[in-house]
Amino acid sequence: MRVLGIDPGTAACGYGIVHESGGRVTAVVHGCWRTSARERPELRLRTIFDGVTALIRDHAPDAVALEESFVGADARVALSVGQARGAALVAAASAGLECAEYAPARVKQAVCGYGRADKRQVQKMVRMILSLPSDTPTSHEADALAVAICHALLPPLARIAS
Amino acid sequence: MRVLGIDPGTAACGYGIVHESGGRVTAVVHGCWRTSARERPELRLRTIFDGVTALIRDHAPDAVALEESFVGADARVALSVGQARGAALVAAASAGLECAEYAPARVKQAVCGYGRADKRQVQKMVRMILSLPSDTPTSHEADALAVAICHALLPPLARIAS
Repeated sequence: MRVLGIDPGTAACGYGIVHESGGRVTAVVHGCWRTSARERPELRLRTIFDGVTALIRDHAPDAVALEESFVGADARVALSVGQARGAALVAAASAGLECAEYAPARVKQAVCGYGRADKRQVQKMVRMILSLPSDTPTSHEADALAVAICHALLPPLARIAS
Repeated sequence: MRVLGIDPGTAACGYGIVHESGGRVTAVVHGCWRTSARERPELRLRTIFDGVTALIRDHAPDAVALEESFVGADARVALSVGQARGAALVAAASAGLECAEYAPARVKQAVCGYGRADKRQVQKMVRMILSLPSDTPTSHEADALAVAICHALLPPLARIAS
């Protein structure tokens, strides 16, 4: 199966597609959409929507996976992350794909074997699991690939229930 | 000119289109999309995206207007409102329409002549301005129509700057 993982954000939105076969995962594509604060908000969101739509068209993933957003104290940040998530989720739904959400601890557990791993550990483990060159992935790409790996390696029944 | 106003929310998303000609505004259409918390989040957002897309196709508004979201203390609510806003903004941008945002006080000033008017006053004034029957609009529709009226009645130069 192929899973598109997304790390939503308006300024930088990470993405990564992994392919799973017989319990082994490989990276299909990964990257990051960046937009400037000088652009109109709706055009920044459209970059995400168009990006997700194009990835689904070109790589035909079976599912989309996102981390449940950490909802901190800052409602302004939550609003902005929410808008980016909305753009990504709508692109997935318009293509008929289901979206699975995972708690950050669950993603870290799946990738690092430890639910409280830090960003650097996640980045390192994603690189090892997918045999990526040492200068990749960036932190946003690693987060996107991590949630994709988490979904791809889940036992099928757990995946349906998520 | 025609303006589509949107009051974004995941459970209930109000919309209203007004037509302005020579300083007079009339209502073209107004309503509310409602979705159940039992539906998958991405499908709830798709209802908003598809709804905005269909309104733009059927009524060809010249612009889309939204209230700047009140960002309260609750980041969880902000995330949810953000997702609904993202779905609406992306639909507008995909149709090539610009989105204008107005502070709540500015919308109330435009509709009620008083920036601290309460919800009931906004509802009543929207009904009077648009000559709507006494049982309409609902509060979500009134908020959507109010921001549409605000944008439609703005002097052209102020509209460009917003």
